[in-house]
Amino acid sequence: MPDLPADAELARLRASIDNIDAALVHLLAERFKHTQQVGVLKARTGLPPADPDREAEQVTRLRTLADQAGLDPEFAEKFLTFLVAEVIRHHTRLRREADGRQASEQPS
Amino acid sequence: MPDLPADAELARLRASIDNIDAALVHLLAERFKHTQQVGVLKARTGLPPADPDREAEQVTRLRTLADQAGLDPEFAEKFLTFLVAEVIRHHTRLRREADGRQASEQPS
Repeated sequence: MPDLPADAELARLRASIDNIDAALVHLLAERFKHTQQVGVLKARTGLPPADPDREAEQVTRLRTLADQAGLDPEFAEKFLTFLVAEVIRHHTRLRREADGRQASEQPS
Repeated sequence: MPDLPADAELARLRASIDNIDAALVHLLAERFKHTQQVGVLKARTGLPPADPDREAEQVTRLRTLADQAGLDPEFAEKFLTFLVAEVIRHHTRLRREADGRQASEQPS
């Protein structure tokens, strides 16, 4: 590609970043739909919101994928931690809501 | 879909989450390749690493996209803040490296 003036080059890069961000937002929406279902399942079956073994597996896998894709594995791990914190916040809320429903169904 | 036992249902959901995470990691790798180029351009042309106007536009746009996709707009904004912090860290390093090269090219 011929050298573009700096402002045109910046606009070109930002347009691609905006496209990637739109894709990321849609994938994150899809991810939370799935983790929401996990949360409902965990609340219904009494499984705890956090699962350290599963999280350890995810960290190992994502670090490997990041490395292969040219992404800093440290950043990939930080990203997963960021997502998992949000997911556990959701699961804990679902659990409290499920406990609340059970308590209100007890004879007083 | 017929009701699966809870553990099979959990495994099914987690397999989809793992696929989504692999896609996220690859998109993030691509995003950082682009922001890396932005960083090189900014360092070369003397533009500052952070750009508050651009970030404000990104926040507004991503919150709207999140809302349309069924993702909490607050979370989308937190996610962008998380990404931008990492990008600024990279840009600042590139700027320091460029400044270091210029300084070493000055006659002593």
